[in-house]
Amino acid sequence: MSVTDQLLENNEKYAAGFDGPLPLPPAKHVAVLACMDARINVYGVLGLEEGEAHVIRNAGGVVTDDEIRSLAISQRLLGTREVVLIHHTDCGMLTFTDEEFNAALQEDTGLRPTWAAEAFDDLDADVRKSIGRIKDSPFVPYTDSVRGFVFDVASGRLREVS
Amino acid sequence: MSVTDQLLENNEKYAAGFDGPLPLPPAKHVAVLACMDARINVYGVLGLEEGEAHVIRNAGGVVTDDEIRSLAISQRLLGTREVVLIHHTDCGMLTFTDEEFNAALQEDTGLRPTWAAEAFDDLDADVRKSIGRIKDSPFVPYTDSVRGFVFDVASGRLREVS
Repeated sequence: MSVTDQLLENNEKYAAGFDGPLPLPPAKHVAVLACMDARINVYGVLGLEEGEAHVIRNAGGVVTDDEIRSLAISQRLLGTREVVLIHHTDCGMLTFTDEEFNAALQEDTGLRPTWAAEAFDDLDADVRKSIGRIKDSPFVPYTDSVRGFVFDVASGRLREVS
Repeated sequence: MSVTDQLLENNEKYAAGFDGPLPLPPAKHVAVLACMDARINVYGVLGLEEGEAHVIRNAGGVVTDDEIRSLAISQRLLGTREVVLIHHTDCGMLTFTDEEFNAALQEDTGLRPTWAAEAFDDLDADVRKSIGRIKDSPFVPYTDSVRGFVFDVASGRLREVS
């Protein structure tokens, strides 16, 4: 049995205890942008319930055009007003460089991506860069509360980046 | 107190019961790509535990260059082999068109984004398109198990798109 089939069996149990539907707009008017890392259970880490927050995730928790797209839709169409950014300790993005990653892709496929891998070597600096990219975007209208954190995968605790 | 501050208080409780750290590579070798919708608690819906799966999310659960970037890193550097795509009923992306959204941005900011909003009018067709974008990418090496689902926000159940 594939992992996907196991997850579908799990879903049957979840649906059996499910109480829906909830409204479309997030009840807490907040959007979370976090790394895709398997150890960050965003609902658990922040004590969120179903229906409360948009959750955007990618490799690194970085801000590219696609995260600006998601945040623009989140704020303009669905009423979110705060943004919570989450990077984390022991991140895979700290283990390589954009140049190494794209060179390996070119070696294996003969093609070079037009996008950067968005690797980084300083967690706090990358959190600040991500906050800056959101605040600088003309398409994200509400930037009074854009706060960034590092999740410690050893302690489960968030530390704010100032 | 801002919502962000409330979530930080919740995090103190989470950290108090936290047992880490877990290994970096996802234990179940699976990457989930889902819509950012607040009602989709991916860990709950799929019965996932911390450390088991990468979770990538954006407005619509669509596949753009940034999701290819995340999947390439997930598979090439961190060993995932299956992909689970999740769209859902009552999605905000069904309520507008790319042209309307970008025209509104231009009206409000004087600027027009270079990206498409990625709205859609047929859930199953967009799931199939997303599967196709992943399978067509030279940068995502493992595509034998790329399966797509629609999450029903009323029942909590996943329906596979064939």
